[in-house]
Amino acid sequence: MTTTENHTPMGFGRMHRKEDARFIRGHGQYVDDVNLPGMLHGAVLRSPHAHARIVSIDTSAAEAHPKVKAVITGQTLEGLNLAWMPTLSHDVQAVLATDKVRFQGQEVAFVVADDRYAARDALEVIDVEYEALPPVVDARRALEPDAPVIRTDIDGKRDNHIFDWEAGDAARTDEVFASADVVSAQDMLYPRVHPAPMETCGAVAHMDPITGKLTVWTTTQAPHAHRTLYALVAGLPEHKIRVISPDIGGGFGNKVGIYPGYVCAVVGSIVTGKPVKWMEDRSENLMSTSFARDYHMHGEIAATRDGKILGVRVNVLADHGAFNGTAQPTKFPAGFFSVFTGSYDIEAAHCAVTGVYTNKAPGGVAYACSFRITEAVYLVERLVDVLAYDLGMDPAELRKRNLLRPEQFPYVSKTGWEYDSGDYPRALSQAMDIAGYAELREEQKRRAVSGDGPLMGIGISFFTEAVGAGPRKHMDILGLGMADGAELRVHPTGKAVLRLSCQSQGQGHETTFAQIVAEELGISPDDIEVVHGDTDQTPFGLGTYGSRSTPVSGGATAVVARRVRERAKIVASAMLEVSPDDLEWEKGRWFVQGDPDSGKTIQEIALAAHSDLELPDGVEGHLDATCVYNPPNLTYPFGAYICVVDVDPETGQVKVRRFVAVDDCGVRINPTIVEGQVHGGLAEGIGMALMQVMAFDEDGNHLGGSFMDYLIPTSMECPSWELGETVTPSPHHPIGAKGVGESATVGSPAAVVNAVVDALKPYGVRHADMPLTPAAVWRALQNRPLRTDLAIT
Amino acid sequence: MTTTENHTPMGFGRMHRKEDARFIRGHGQYVDDVNLPGMLHGAVLRSPHAHARIVSIDTSAAEAHPKVKAVITGQTLEGLNLAWMPTLSHDVQAVLATDKVRFQGQEVAFVVADDRYAARDALEVIDVEYEALPPVVDARRALEPDAPVIRTDIDGKRDNHIFDWEAGDAARTDEVFASADVVSAQDMLYPRVHPAPMETCGAVAHMDPITGKLTVWTTTQAPHAHRTLYALVAGLPEHKIRVISPDIGGGFGNKVGIYPGYVCAVVGSIVTGKPVKWMEDRSENLMSTSFARDYHMHGEIAATRDGKILGVRVNVLADHGAFNGTAQPTKFPAGFFSVFTGSYDIEAAHCAVTGVYTNKAPGGVAYACSFRITEAVYLVERLVDVLAYDLGMDPAELRKRNLLRPEQFPYVSKTGWEYDSGDYPRALSQAMDIAGYAELREEQKRRAVSGDGPLMGIGISFFTEAVGAGPRKHMDILGLGMADGAELRVHPTGKAVLRLSCQSQGQGHETTFAQIVAEELGISPDDIEVVHGDTDQTPFGLGTYGSRSTPVSGGATAVVARRVRERAKIVASAMLEVSPDDLEWEKGRWFVQGDPDSGKTIQEIALAAHSDLELPDGVEGHLDATCVYNPPNLTYPFGAYICVVDVDPETGQVKVRRFVAVDDCGVRINPTIVEGQVHGGLAEGIGMALMQVMAFDEDGNHLGGSFMDYLIPTSMECPSWELGETVTPSPHHPIGAKGVGESATVGSPAAVVNAVVDALKPYGVRHADMPLTPAAVWRALQNRPLRTDLAIT
Repeated sequence: MTTTENHTPMGFGRMHRKEDARFIRGHGQYVDDVNLPGMLHGAVLRSPHAHARIVSIDTSAAEAHPKVKAVITGQTLEGLNLAWMPTLSHDVQAVLATDKVRFQGQEVAFVVADDRYAARDALEVIDVEYEALPPVVDARRALEPDAPVIRTDIDGKRDNHIFDWEAGDAARTDEVFASADVVSAQDMLYPRVHPAPMETCGAVAHMDPITGKLTVWTTTQAPHAHRTLYALVAGLPEHKIRVISPDIGGGFGNKVGIYPGYVCAVVGSIVTGKPVKWMEDRSENLMSTSFARDYHMHGEIAATRDGKILGVRVNVLADHGAFNGTAQPTKFPAGFFSVFTGSYDIEAAHCAVTGVYTNKAPGGVAYACSFRITEAVYLVERLVDVLAYDLGMDPAELRKRNLLRPEQFPYVSKTGWEYDSGDYPRALSQAMDIAGYAELREEQKRRAVSGDGPLMGIGISFFTEAVGAGPRKHMDILGLGMADGAELRVHPTGKAVLRLSCQSQGQGHETTFAQIVAEELGISPDDIEVVHGDTDQTPFGLGTYGSRSTPVSGGATAVVARRVRERAKIVASAMLEVSPDDLEWEKGRWFVQGDPDSGKTIQEIALAAHSDLELPDGVEGHLDATCVYNPPNLTYPFGAYICVVDVDPETGQVKVRRFVAVDDCGVRINPTIVEGQVHGGLAEGIGMALMQVMAFDEDGNHLGGSFMDYLIPTSMECPSWELGETVTPSPHHPIGAKGVGESATVGSPAAVVNAVVDALKPYGVRHADMPLTPAAVWRALQNRPLRTDLAIT
Repeated sequence: MTTTENHTPMGFGRMHRKEDARFIRGHGQYVDDVNLPGMLHGAVLRSPHAHARIVSIDTSAAEAHPKVKAVITGQTLEGLNLAWMPTLSHDVQAVLATDKVRFQGQEVAFVVADDRYAARDALEVIDVEYEALPPVVDARRALEPDAPVIRTDIDGKRDNHIFDWEAGDAARTDEVFASADVVSAQDMLYPRVHPAPMETCGAVAHMDPITGKLTVWTTTQAPHAHRTLYALVAGLPEHKIRVISPDIGGGFGNKVGIYPGYVCAVVGSIVTGKPVKWMEDRSENLMSTSFARDYHMHGEIAATRDGKILGVRVNVLADHGAFNGTAQPTKFPAGFFSVFTGSYDIEAAHCAVTGVYTNKAPGGVAYACSFRITEAVYLVERLVDVLAYDLGMDPAELRKRNLLRPEQFPYVSKTGWEYDSGDYPRALSQAMDIAGYAELREEQKRRAVSGDGPLMGIGISFFTEAVGAGPRKHMDILGLGMADGAELRVHPTGKAVLRLSCQSQGQGHETTFAQIVAEELGISPDDIEVVHGDTDQTPFGLGTYGSRSTPVSGGATAVVARRVRERAKIVASAMLEVSPDDLEWEKGRWFVQGDPDSGKTIQEIALAAHSDLELPDGVEGHLDATCVYNPPNLTYPFGAYICVVDVDPETGQVKVRRFVAVDDCGVRINPTIVEGQVHGGLAEGIGMALMQVMAFDEDGNHLGGSFMDYLIPTSMECPSWELGETVTPSPHHPIGAKGVGESATVGSPAAVVNAVVDALKPYGVRHADMPLTPAAVWRALQNRPLRTDLAIT
């Protein structure tokens, strides 16, 4: 790991995060730190049933509680036009259930009281009569003709059905498969997981009864989208809504959607005329906020005998829970799962996905998935390893033979996506060099022969992500496009403020985006204030998720800084009394060509722009610019990961011994922050591969209501990461950056699982589903004799 | 007075003020309403001497006070580079005096304590040893060779001297005077007055020790200028300063400059790490914040025997107090006093003004003076009446003969100012019609003959203002130009937010500016939020004073709305799939020419702009615009006022019986607000004419420290105003508006004084100086027999 030097670069490079001054000293300001005079507290009553009809709700005892100020039910909301709220996929979700409850933990009522304790106490005395209904817990049950009906699809035609979509050319794919030497097939499950950010969701809502202005401090990754959704759905006037996202304690997609608690806090404030705070506890967050994955996948891969991959064929049953919360790309119907063709040069591919309703909490954009790329990458990288197993080939060698070659970029995939740039073989080679791949295989052989110590496994994954949701041609959310805005204002004294629509949840935006401006203008990052998280202070945009901050807002920032530079050129030309055409830019100043001493710094130009300097007609006296940026294309970060594990066959315990990650996210603005993002994502990948699963029993009871039940990785489970990098700038981004927020989460689970399965190979294990807990590994080994012929390939 | 109808016009017209919902219910939020956790309180130690050397300051007893957190003196400030602060005229003022005190009430030390009471108590035990120096109280003494030295001028050459400037052609004026039949001369004093806003000045400063961000809630009319001044002078980084002006309880120019208390609150917060509140009491505001006027004027007017005015010649001695706080136009050295040629078609004019230091508090931009136009208008309007007296002519008749004629506009004055538009004779005729001028003169004659009742006087004034400080060619403040910014953002649902750099102090900006957008775009004013008073939320600009909000920010608003309309046209053309050239605008929508049903409303266009609609290359997906507006010229509101008074010769008591005001401020955005501004200004005019004067004794002791000593008018002194209007749109403003904030204050004092002098005419009174208190009037009548020959003209 490289040391961060403690100086401020005038542009890209390592520097300490500007926000850490407050975080390290414990002075971050989170939603729960917002305390307003007269503030009341809310609590949510949740359904104990996964599926039940509501017969009646009696709130009289709760209302009689001396500290209770209001009890809100679905009936209250009807009157306010807030009974249903949109999910990000054009579905709607009941804010508070009136007719039925559809998952355990669903919101039924909301109590507002003087304090949090009284609100909780009052929940106990709300009398809800339920008539239990049979639940659907397994997605495979949902479409059976006699399955209990949770909901019908949007057209009202098919019970429990949400969508069918497909990508690729089915006929051509079948042809390719028919002609292949080898077809390897594998069923696999990507289990339901939860992003589990350290900060749970919550809001403080204040509807000022005098001004009619609603201010909502809220844990959201997308403040502007939230504001517009409140306005569109509830008819609250958009100019009278201010959404403030202060510091956010992690998001990972969990904080994109609107949850009933947010809406209830708003309604509580409307009803009482006081500010109302609502904060989830850990159980509520784990039980009712957006899950991820829960995909039953059947994959097939076709190849020649010598390992040339010809095609991939995939069928997915997608469990979206009780409401379709997943942001649904509408313009490109196959969605991002379309990049299931991976990083390989193949001839044909086809994918079909069916989405169904089940009696579980709604799935979301959640968990660093770039809209289902995580599942797709895992699937294809497992399939490649299964093929290697079947062919008896080294999985590295198999990948080498099939990776896209540098000269193929820009590369249009078999499902129509244009990969921007890359040198994939170089990334894999670098990872293998860092890992010492050949030596590792030697060691593995030695150990297998000697039988000493635990089983050793080596797993590889190669991933390509499609991130930077923004291009008009690809998608929208609820009719809103996916552009992001940036405003850059250079004050008279040459200090600057950059206002962005994206929203940090800990990624270091205040540093990264200041560095982009610094690079373009030559103003020190220390002299640039980055403002986000307040709809009153920032331009409209769709927020931060799907690794889109650098691809979209980063693009907007570079463009807006260049516009300021061009304005500065005109002002400088008036100051220097020369034509703008005679000026030349050097970071931080414009000077007259051939006369380097003649220059005016950006600071001098800023003061002059605000002064009484005579400027050409139509040129206004300031040094500001705005931009709303729609990227021309997605960006395609990629990487090669190698994981080395030790597996104890007696206990099933997996230890990740080494992890090598070579990432290519294009130009790196602040390498230290990039590495931090990779570290976090790798930890998450280990968590998903080895321990995380959000389980339910057959009645739909949620079994992961605390961190004792739902396990997330700590530093104890993580090795000392070994990082490498290649840099192939994206030609579709102003500064060539691609984004890195989810890369490691997307890419790493397959490397870990491939490593574990590789370790178990001597026992004839070809596949095992995540999470590879000690129990799961131990079970996989039962009744399987050790086969030395398999151990040594 | 016209009734305000309670509906919202889609543009200009009468509507209730949007801000009144909170003001009427007592929910305005003023600086003193800001209370932060852990906030400390500051108090200022002030000099008891008008002029003294500071021998020593001993703060040890104050520092020992158990509730005192800090005692700040000039020495503390040296270390922070905050010892001197700029005034608006390139002068500097000691924040806390170290060497000398130069006026009674000057700031010497600042105590920060747990509460206001402890802070005040601690002031008592600060031991300052003074060595008294002789003071200069009368400006006429300041330049005498043996006068005590307060300061030297900026070049260090001449003691107590600030500036000499002149305007007009002295030689040509002398020629005109030499050839004239009649020359009337008069010395007059425009007394020192104080704006006396209901809310005194104050600030809450919070330097966050974690983020290094300074937030200052402050009573300022110019938040951006304040921020830049803090940055320029103290080197505080501008992007780390946020100046918030919440609701402001009246400004009238008193709240333009930076006062030492503001700076001390900031320093107090830096030193203690806590928020610090400082609020003046009434005495402090009256004693030490910016005064106005205090001009000793000698005027001469030359005319032909039949009343054709030929020229005006003026000498002024301007008392600016101990520091030159007056905003000083630097590019047009004669400043706004140059419009002393009034509203008349004359041949030549010359004016010379000398500014001097005296031992009084610094004068300011203060008090609705449009940079000294108030004094100029008073001077010339009194001179015209003196000429009428000398010629034995009716003053209305004399004015009629000399007013500029409509066909002379645009009119370039003898001092080079370009008056934009007007029909002056029509305004005077209308005022005379409303007043029933001929009947009033008849009544006056009858009363004089009968001797019944009090003396009756009829006074006229005609004024032309030059307002809208902004054109680059005219002026700057401290090197900053005088442009103002506007940003208009139309949200996806078609509601809008307008962000302005100007700052309301009660003028109804939230309503007026919303109406300009409504007029241009067809969005209801109710759907437009106007934001000002927060440097973090608004574009840069110089703020509100000198009636410049409508001329400058109003222009910016109209321009920015038109830019949004043009953007909307491009979006609509993409929606309707026609060329933009085929579209026609009708308020609120674009439609295809010849097909009125085809239109898209601005709200539909806003949603589409934020959606995935394909827009032409280079067109970004939003409906926002920004503008920084430098007006092409000043605007010239004008008006004709007629005042009728009754004067009791026994007591000197003046009663204003009637007051007719015909104002032309160009296009009226909200006539109710315009009338409110006129009402307020007329009351102020009566106050200045009849009661207000900030007096000092010969030792420089300030004699007006409360509203028992310094009298301001109430509704008891005001008649039921009789208003009229003419509308000649300004060709130099996008919507033809001129501004009206100071018109009545500027125009009315002369009408009242002319009326009183007219009433006293039977006693041979030709002039009497303001304020015409009962004592002053009574004195003017002493030893003057009633002359019936003078009573009946």
